[in-house]
Amino acid sequence: MFKVFYEDLEVGSKEAFGSYTATKEEIIDFAGKYDPQPFHLDEEMAKQSVFGSLCASGWHTCSMTMSMLVDYMKDKGFAGMGSPGVDNIRWKTPVFPGDILSVKSEIIEKRESQSRPNLGLVKSKYSVFNQKDELLMEMVTNVMVLKRGD
Amino acid sequence: MFKVFYEDLEVGSKEAFGSYTATKEEIIDFAGKYDPQPFHLDEEMAKQSVFGSLCASGWHTCSMTMSMLVDYMKDKGFAGMGSPGVDNIRWKTPVFPGDILSVKSEIIEKRESQSRPNLGLVKSKYSVFNQKDELLMEMVTNVMVLKRGD
Repeated sequence: MFKVFYEDLEVGSKEAFGSYTATKEEIIDFAGKYDPQPFHLDEEMAKQSVFGSLCASGWHTCSMTMSMLVDYMKDKGFAGMGSPGVDNIRWKTPVFPGDILSVKSEIIEKRESQSRPNLGLVKSKYSVFNQKDELLMEMVTNVMVLKRGD
Repeated sequence: MFKVFYEDLEVGSKEAFGSYTATKEEIIDFAGKYDPQPFHLDEEMAKQSVFGSLCASGWHTCSMTMSMLVDYMKDKGFAGMGSPGVDNIRWKTPVFPGDILSVKSEIIEKRESQSRPNLGLVKSKYSVFNQKDELLMEMVTNVMVLKRGD
């Protein structure tokens, strides 16, 4: 089932993947449930905000990114076992309706887990861009990866 | 409309708020869209994972927390203007179906914005608990807050 394990991952390696269109309907639906601030829901209110126009919740941007990451991991057979957390998220440019998101990633660190000998911890930086190659979000996060154990 | 501005917020002040029930349906619905890893979707697969049982995506936990925070901000008339980013998220304990989430917050830092003179930046630590008072998640995040300007 899995093809890529902890031992196969190299610090410094880079990947590009994903294509996710942030529709207006999905932006408003997500914000309505989880981040009902006016600038994520209403075009007129958003014009008066720092964002200037209706835009996605930052948490929606994270979630759309996660969707692309999981698709990528499944496609590669990556033995991801969840995450203990995120080191940093910076929302740089708003995500507007119709934007198409894509991801560039770089592995910046890896180490074996002390508490779980069958797992390693891989730290990666993810940069999310729109169709105009504008940087939307940068995030450094950690994934627990199964060891092949040979 | 707004009642609480940047000048009104004190470093060290603490609040407790929110009550959000993480239903199984919502856990699976969110994960299906944004984090379709087996342990967030399927009870049998989850038993074999580090989590031991079907649990929410960490991004869903963040989103449920944001929902509680926005409700709280609206209730208090808090002049929140969005966020430039998050400093740290640690997912400590899984969120299982039926868990009831609540939040404790503490303002840990505040400073005026250099680039936007009508805003200040407020850094807070959020701790999210379940109904058994187990710590589910800790997060340090930043909110831009409008100044009253008097």
